[in-house]
Amino acid sequence: MDQPRLADWSPTMHHIDQNMQACIDTCLRCYQTCLGMSTGHCLEVGGEHARPDHIKLMLACSETCRATAHVMIIGSRHRKHLCAECADICADCASECERVRDMEECVQACRACAESCRDMAA
Amino acid sequence: MDQPRLADWSPTMHHIDQNMQACIDTCLRCYQTCLGMSTGHCLEVGGEHARPDHIKLMLACSETCRATAHVMIIGSRHRKHLCAECADICADCASECERVRDMEECVQACRACAESCRDMAA
Amino acid sequence: MDQPRLADWSPTMHHIDQNMQACIDTCLRCYQTCLGMSTGHCLEVGGEHARPDHIKLMLACSETCRATAHVMIIGSRHRKHLCAECADICADCASECERVRDMEECVQACRACAESCRDMAA
Amino acid sequence: MDQPRLADWSPTMHHIDQNMQACIDTCLRCYQTCLGMSTGHCLEVGGEHARPDHIKLMLACSETCRATAHVMIIGSRHRKHLCAECADICADCASECERVRDMEECVQACRACAESCRDMAA
Repeated sequence: MDQPRLADWSPTMHHIDQNMQACIDTCLRCYQTCLGMSTGHCLEVGGEHARPDHIKLMLACSETCRATAHVMIIGSRHRKHLCAECADICADCASECERVRDMEECVQACRACAESCRDMAA
Repeated sequence: MDQPRLADWSPTMHHIDQNMQACIDTCLRCYQTCLGMSTGHCLEVGGEHARPDHIKLMLACSETCRATAHVMIIGSRHRKHLCAECADICADCASECERVRDMEECVQACRACAESCRDMAA
Repeated sequence: MDQPRLADWSPTMHHIDQNMQACIDTCLRCYQTCLGMSTGHCLEVGGEHARPDHIKLMLACSETCRATAHVMIIGSRHRKHLCAECADICADCASECERVRDMEECVQACRACAESCRDMAA
Repeated sequence: MDQPRLADWSPTMHHIDQNMQACIDTCLRCYQTCLGMSTGHCLEVGGEHARPDHIKLMLACSETCRATAHVMIIGSRHRKHLCAECADICADCASECERVRDMEECVQACRACAESCRDMAA
């Protein structure tokens, strides 16, 4: 089945413009990447990838992205503060994943989310 | 910015195959549609759209889709039960949204999610 | 069944001290109050209580409390930023609920959460 | 600060009776125990406690409890199905935690939640 892109399907939700929809997509992608890689990659690989601080950062980043997307989808004016915090934790998670290596997918998702959230928070 | 589709970005998460990724995408889309339309459309339109039972069903459907996607992303074997329940609530939400009218986007997202989750639960 | 208080049951989770546990409890209580009252009280009462901006603020406050508790439970160092943001949205939600009236329970839960999160963020 | 028990603070939310409130409390406690112990105990202890399947089960159990509580708080009629599924995954998680040993707190929280959710699903 051909999946339409998330950005294509919300003409009725006029409280969500194109920029915000792109940020929601980026947050949900980062949420999924951090959660999926921490459980499906880092725990399997072990060693430094399975260190508590690394897994905890990825899970906290994942939850922050998830909640930030949620507050944007609701259309709340408080999205700016959450976007600012989300940009911070994503930037930290990207640096940490780069240091640990073999986490390129997560580095990219976190960088993209940090940039998108920083713009949204401005 | 051109957004890659969610289905394209997880080569490393080998616990998630293509079918499951499609189901995750469908769940996250239904989550977003139900949450976004309940707050950005139904509450604005008022009348039958803002009836407590309608809003509550949409919020419960939204949360069920969100949790079902989450459990699939983690790669848990318990996804089948949640997918079965998700298919049920999405089918109910689709019927209710069809009855209320002017909710075509939500009807479609719920139908697609019900079908995808039913396949995954099989 | 006699329910032990949340604060009593986590001797093994040594990354969560008593102050943090109290803040987690307060966040989860505010999450539940905002979510439960928006659907079980405000939508039923209607009028100003069911205005989109009021419901959206309550749902966004609820989600922020939920995510803030989550990040504390994980034991992430990023909890401080989320606690600061949570204090802000809870203070706003308390003021708005006070203005709308007949929301005393929510005003109190939001005030307590704002205070607890502000301390945790310090 | 003396924390009132969660069960004491929702007189206004008349869609939530005492039995349901007890089940919500039990779910939120199990959510917190599974999430907090997987990150603050299992990952630290390592060995069998940090095996991917164990962590994934605990995270999936945690999310299922969280979503089940959420749907009850909303007051949705779909709570029964989620409670049934929550009882299943909690029973599995209790058995697995018992097998792994040194997880008594989690065994108890999961058992209590399985029992409470089974009653609610009946």
